[in-house]
Parts: sequence; C-alpha cells; structure tokens
Amino acid sequence: MNNPFFKNHGPFKVVDLLKDLKLQDIDINNDDIIQDIRDLSSADKNHLTFFHSKKYYPVAEKTKASYCITLKNLSNYLPKGCKAICVDNVLLVIAKITSKFYPDAINDDFDNSVNNIEKLNFKNDIKHGQNVLVGANVKIGNNCLIGHNTIIEKNVNIGSNCSIGSNVIIRNTLIEDNVNILDGCVIGKKGFGFFPNNQKNLKYPHIGIVYIGENSEIGCGSTIDRGSMSNTVIGKNTFLDNQIHIAHNNKIGDNCIIAGQVGFAGSTIIGNNVMIGGQAGISGHLKIGNNVKIGGGSGVIKDIPDNSKVMGYPSKDLRQFLKENK
Amino acid sequence: MNNPFFKNHGPFKVVDLLKDLKLQDIDINNDDIIQDIRDLSSADKNHLTFFHSKKYYPVAEKTKASYCITLKNLSNYLPKGCKAICVDNVLLVIAKITSKFYPDAINDDFDNSVNNIEKLNFKNDIKHGQNVLVGANVKIGNNCLIGHNTIIEKNVNIGSNCSIGSNVIIRNTLIEDNVNILDGCVIGKKGFGFFPNNQKNLKYPHIGIVYIGENSEIGCGSTIDRGSMSNTVIGKNTFLDNQIHIAHNNKIGDNCIIAGQVGFAGSTIIGNNVMIGGQAGISGHLKIGNNVKIGGGSGVIKDIPDNSKVMGYPSKDLRQFLKENK
Amino acid sequence: MNNPFFKNHGPFKVVDLLKDLKLQDIDINNDDIIQDIRDLSSADKNHLTFFHSKKYYPVAEKTKASYCITLKNLSNYLPKGCKAICVDNVLLVIAKITSKFYPDAINDDFDNSVNNIEKLNFKNDIKHGQNVLVGANVKIGNNCLIGHNTIIEKNVNIGSNCSIGSNVIIRNTLIEDNVNILDGCVIGKKGFGFFPNNQKNLKYPHIGIVYIGENSEIGCGSTIDRGSMSNTVIGKNTFLDNQIHIAHNNKIGDNCIIAGQVGFAGSTIIGNNVMIGGQAGISGHLKIGNNVKIGGGSGVIKDIPDNSKVMGYPSKDLRQFLKENK
Repeated sequence: MNNPFFKNHGPFKVVDLLKDLKLQDIDINNDDIIQDIRDLSSADKNHLTFFHSKKYYPVAEKTKASYCITLKNLSNYLPKGCKAICVDNVLLVIAKITSKFYPDAINDDFDNSVNNIEKLNFKNDIKHGQNVLVGANVKIGNNCLIGHNTIIEKNVNIGSNCSIGSNVIIRNTLIEDNVNILDGCVIGKKGFGFFPNNQKNLKYPHIGIVYIGENSEIGCGSTIDRGSMSNTVIGKNTFLDNQIHIAHNNKIGDNCIIAGQVGFAGSTIIGNNVMIGGQAGISGHLKIGNNVKIGGGSGVIKDIPDNSKVMGYPSKDLRQFLKENK
Repeated sequence: MNNPFFKNHGPFKVVDLLKDLKLQDIDINNDDIIQDIRDLSSADKNHLTFFHSKKYYPVAEKTKASYCITLKNLSNYLPKGCKAICVDNVLLVIAKITSKFYPDAINDDFDNSVNNIEKLNFKNDIKHGQNVLVGANVKIGNNCLIGHNTIIEKNVNIGSNCSIGSNVIIRNTLIEDNVNILDGCVIGKKGFGFFPNNQKNLKYPHIGIVYIGENSEIGCGSTIDRGSMSNTVIGKNTFLDNQIHIAHNNKIGDNCIIAGQVGFAGSTIIGNNVMIGGQAGISGHLKIGNNVKIGGGSGVIKDIPDNSKVMGYPSKDLRQFLKENK
Repeated sequence: MNNPFFKNHGPFKVVDLLKDLKLQDIDINNDDIIQDIRDLSSADKNHLTFFHSKKYYPVAEKTKASYCITLKNLSNYLPKGCKAICVDNVLLVIAKITSKFYPDAINDDFDNSVNNIEKLNFKNDIKHGQNVLVGANVKIGNNCLIGHNTIIEKNVNIGSNCSIGSNVIIRNTLIEDNVNILDGCVIGKKGFGFFPNNQKNLKYPHIGIVYIGENSEIGCGSTIDRGSMSNTVIGKNTFLDNQIHIAHNNKIGDNCIIAGQVGFAGSTIIGNNVMIGGQAGISGHLKIGNNVKIGGGSGVIKDIPDNSKVMGYPSKDLRQFLKENK
C-alpha cells in the first residue's frame, strides 16, 4: 500500500540517497532505483528497508525489499534478493533517508490549508458546532457529529456515525465507523522520535498514521501519536478513558479497556480483550498477549503471555503481588 | 430531589421496565408504577433502586425504595416495604432500565444548543472573552469571568465571583461561589462506565452531576467526570493542581490539597483536609478518612483511617515506607 | 533585573509593609524604603528577601538585600548589611508582602487585553491560523507560526523561527529561537502555591516567568507553570513529550529528553543531558546532576549525583533495581 497521506518525493537512485551520508565505501549498484522506504514486512521489490535489532530477524529473513540498511552483524539474516547496506547507526541513516522521501513528515506545524467547515462541501447530515476547521484531503462519512472549535487537519478519513467532541485536533488519521472521540484529544501528531544532538536534535520523520477501529471510544484529553515507519493502531470496540497517552507505533487490539492516565511508550503490541487499570505504564517494544489484565499503577517492562493477570512496578503475577503486599 | 439536569422520561409500569430484559419469571405486581430510579439512600416510595454488593448492606437495610434490583443472596437485607427483583447481573439490568428513564444521559455528543454569549441575556457584570459559547439551561452568578473559547454547555449553574479560564468545557455541573476553573479543563462529561461486549460495548447512562463547592480551584487540563447514579463532588476550599483526573462518583471533602497528575478511579470517598502528592493514584470504591496525607506517587488500594500518613505502591504507613527505603 | 512582566507597585516603607501583618515588635528603622522583593541571590540594596530553610544558608550568607524575612534561628547566617525580620511563618509573611508589591500576580483570570492577531501590527512573515488572540506586551520574532485558536496572553516574548501549535495558551513567558510548542499546551500560569486556610486558602503571588531555551520542544497537552519568586526554566535543545507537568520554579538543563506524562513537583534543579522515562515523578526541591538517566515510572525523592542511572519508587541505582526485580 502506498502511503495514504504523505507525498512520496521519490524515486531516488541508491547513489543519490547515500552520497550525503558520509558512509564508508559500500559495494552498490549505483544505477538501482529505490521507489519507497518501508518496514521489513511491508517492503517490496525496489524498496529500501531497515533492520536494526536481532529481535526482528524472523521478519528480516522474509523481507522482499531490494535494499536494507542494517548492522554488519545482522546482514547475514537477510535473504539473497536483499542487498545489505551496513552502517553504524541504522536509525540515524534511515531517518535521513526517510526525510528525503517524505520531507513533509518531519514537522507538525499548524495546518494552514483549513477552512471553516461551512465553506466546504460536506453533506448536510454532518452536524457540526461553531468554528469547526477542516483541512485538505479530509473525508467524513454519514451522520457524523463534530464539536465546537474542533480542527480536522489535512489527511483524515472519518467513517460514518462518528461523534467527535469539541476542542479536538486530528490529523493523519483513519477512523472507522461509530467511533467517539471525546473533548480535547490530539490525534495524529508526530511521535516523540529524534536523534539527540547537542546543538539541535535531528527529528525523525513520522510517515505512519493513526488508525482507530470501529465502535471505539477515546477519552477526553488523550493524545495518540502517529507511527514513524508503521502505524499506530487502536482496535475495534476498544475504550480509552481520559488523559491517556499512546506514543508512536503502538498496536492495541480489539475489545480492550484502558483506564485513565495510562501511558504507552511506543512500538508495543497489545492483544485483544486486554484490561489496563488507571495510571499503568507500558514500556516500549513489548508484546502483551490476549486477555491480559494489568492492575492500576503497574509498570510493565517485560512481555506478558496470554491470559495473565499482573500488577506492580515492575509488574509481576497478580497473586504474588497481593501476597507480598498484604 | 429530582434530577436537576436530565429529563426523566418516566414513570413506567414495572412490567414495562422488565419485559425487554429477558429475566426469569419474577413474582411482581404488574400494575405498580415506578416514578424514578435512584441509589439506595436517596430512593423513596415508588422508586426503583439497586443493591449489588454486600458492602452496601447498611444502606440497603434502610432504603425507602419500593423495588430493588439485586442478587438473590442479597435480597434478605432489604426492608419489608422494598420488593426485590433478583437478577444475575445487577449493573447491566440497572443500566438498561436507567437508559429507559434517562435516554439523554448515555452519549455526550457536542451541545448544539449553544449560542455565542453575546447573543444571550446575561448580566453586564459577567466579563467574558472572545468566542464564548453557552448552552440551554445555564445560570451564571454575579461578577463572573469566562475566558476565551470556553464552552459552557447545557445544564450548568455557576455561582458568583467565579473565574473560568480559557478553552474550558463544562456541562451538567453545579459550581458554587468563588470557584476558579483554570484553562483547558473538561468538567461534567459522562464517566468511563459501560458493560464490555465483544461487538459493541453497552454504555452506562450517567445521570449524576459534578458539584464543586465554594472557594475551590481546579487546575489546568483537569478532567472531572459526572456521576453515574450519584454525583461527583469536590468539597469547599479544595484545591486541585494541573492534569488531575477525577472519575465518576468520587466525593472529595473540604480543604483538600491535591497535587498534579493525581488520578481517582471512581466511587471513592475522600475526607476533609486530605493532602495528596503528585501522581498518586486512588483506586475505586475506597474510603479515605479526614486529615490523611498521601505521598506523591502512591498507589492507594485500601481504605485509610483518619489522620494517617501513607506512601508507597501499594501505600503503607509513611514511616514504614521510609524505613524500608532508606 | 527588574521584573519583566509584572508591575512593581512599590516602593514601600518598611513600616507600611509590616504594619498589617500583626508581627511582634521588631526593631526596625521605619523610614527605610524597600524598592522590590527578590530571592536571596538576586536581591540587592534596598530590596527585601526571605530565608526560610537552613538548606539555603550558603546563598543567604552572601545576600545583598537590606532586609530579610526569616526565622529567629536562621537570622545569624545573614551578613551584617542585611537586617533580619524574624517571624514564625516566613512564607506566609512573604506571600502577603509580595502581594503588596505585585497584586496582579495572584490570580490568573483570562486576559481581556487580547485582540485578534489580524487587528494587530505584526510582521507579514508571521503565519497564523484562525481565531488567534494576542494580548498586550507581546513580541513575536521573524518567521513564526501560530496555530488556530491559540491565545498568546499578555507578557510573552517569542523568538524567531518558532512554531506554536493550535489551542495553545501562553502568558508570562520568554521563548528563545527555534522553539516548538505543540498543540494544547498551557504555559505560564501561576503555580500551585498557597497557604492552607480552612475558610479560604491564601494564594501565593507568582511573579516569576517561564523561560524556554532555543531549539526546545514542548509536547502536546503539557503544562508549565511560572515561578513564584524565581523563574521556571527549560534549557536549550531540551525535548518534552506529551502530557508533561512542570510545576513552578523547576530549572531543567540543556539537551534533556523527557518522555510522556512525567511530572515535576517544583523548585527542583535538573542538570544537562538528563533522560527521564515516561510517567516518572520528580519531587520538589531536589538537585539532579548532569547526564543522569531516570527510568520510566520512577519516583525520585532524593538528590541524584552526576552520571547516575536510577529506577524505582523510590528510585535507586538502576542495576540494583533490575537485580532485585529479576
């Protein structure tokens, strides 16, 4: 799938992508053309991908990408059709290359393409409040409600029968039917990703989107950041309470219940039917199984298998936690 | 007291309330009329109430309700004048019945009854910013200030000498005199209450309000949800810092001091003169006594008696916590 | 430096400052004039300062203030040129005196000096969204972007090349060049400082500002309160994620990285190159060294020396925490 919202400024020749990066000599065919940059699983022929942690070798072994930015000691995992470009800092290089393909995904300045919704040609069955602003490339389904002062910036698809509250800001987001977004949410901004640099941090372009499945609800004042290379996903019929923060690339399953002030650090996969108590924090790059229950205030720093109940900081088996804290 | 803000669509005959619920046969007088639905303590003759946990038996024994939805093993606690209707899932049944009485309390779509305050007939001594919207059934006292872009939705009473900040959203709320609501708060939205359902969660109607006592202050970006059957209460001269989340049905006492990012899970009663440090979390259905001090970051999962000092996750006696963590 | 934003209603005679405070007899020269009120280090001749905790004696010994509100047992630390005024409750007295000098710094009612930016004489190279309001005494540098519905209240200086998001509220703040403030932030409101009083809390005037160094970024929905007597400071090239709360008087260094939902209780000094994981909480009046790493969810209640890695609640050495929690 091509990127639904960000314009691809490619293709580029491999040599043109690499020449400014001051890499050591690499044996590459300069005439090769790279059409796009993708993650390991979605990359195809003539795409560039990246592979920076051994954790992902099962996906790396099957990638269809023609080129892969990686580390020397990981390059052997790549299939024959994928040429390794070995560098010292994979993510830094990939950030710079992504910025070439998608320069519009680096900063989130306010959207000056917006117009008052009354000046735009939306159907009559969309009920909206006062001072609603809507940007370019926005689709809104039937029977939607959009509250006062809400800003639907460019690159948003909203399904039917959705209720968006007041003072909401949404961009780069795909929302299915029957979704409720409550007051004051900010959805689709770039994630907190950059490379530290004492003079001026180098920001990571975020070319992913936020996807919210049908029948879900997002509580007041919550923030959901869009993905960097992949998407941030909220499953079907998943309910979020107020003041929740979901960082880039998290994938939350269906039928989850997440209480107030919970935070997700990024790139974690949460299964279906997961319940999370208030103020719990979920570290990055974890895998939380199906039907997991996480007690309020827990700090989760390890993967959790299906059907577990945990609590504590760091979280442990719930019975053990309660026993130790009688 | 009748519900101040939500329209009661009753009365209903008992038979009409129960017939769609697919309950097992129950020996009831079909001709009886139910005027309203209330909690155990506020219910009166010809009202329906509910009793779902043994914890509440002292109140149940004295209820004046004519009917009570309850569990078989709890029905014996009810007084003679109150007829038990025994079901398997009390809260689910009560949600469905409440939805019949108060269908307007289920969803919190934006209020399209609002008008710019300049078009309404408020007194000259109310000073307001630009783009202030005010809904139906709103009263504002003398000498109030209302900031820019603030939305006072329908069903709000504000006392005198109150200062409401900018970008605030308030609905279904009763505010006494001399209250400050700082920028960006969302007050009075429905609580996070619903019955999980894999296809589409069943939302619980919230017919309670938010009540804020005189001389209190609510910090920036805080969210206070209205009650489900009872009210969410903030006492007199109680000060809340920024980014606090108060879920439905919490009752917070007078002269409390609550630091930033604290969260309350719901239905907990907090005494007077309670001090709570930043980021502490208070579980649901607890009783916290008067003059209690709760250290920052604590996770409170048990009742706390008067005059205690606690800290930790889960919280324990402060001296013990400090001793164990030297 | 004179206060950049709040009007000094002085000078006052010492006798006039003290006569309403019902202090015990104090040997003072009634004819002396006090020009301003300052903290120990910035006070000069003819200024009044305060000294309430032994912790600050190294600064107190060198103060140039002519008068100092202090405790009897601390008065000996003061230099000869500084006359002690000994009271029982230093902070209460100083709050009352500060209120005389700076009565405008007590409450944060909405700014009714604002106008739509289109009616003001800002340069053409400032790009702004719809419904942007700007108050008195606001300066904005070249090439800035200001999003929709944002309110720049009075007393704000913004450097060049800054990008301010939508729904932002800023007051009493000095922002250097190349700073990004993302959507929904509230910056510069008074801190959570007051003296408990069962009838009506006495609010502490906040005469400090918020200072944000160049190249920094503040995430969505964050709140940064201005200082009481000194300033709240965010260093250069320091990045804050979403939903962070920074209370009054914190000084955060350069090149720091602070993840989502972190909270700072107030008056803490954070060094340079500090990394703080999501949801960590930092108590008040601490000193955190340079190059410190604080794990997500930590509760920091003690000073931390340079180059340390800590985690836990309360936080401890990271290796010890991980060892104890295998």
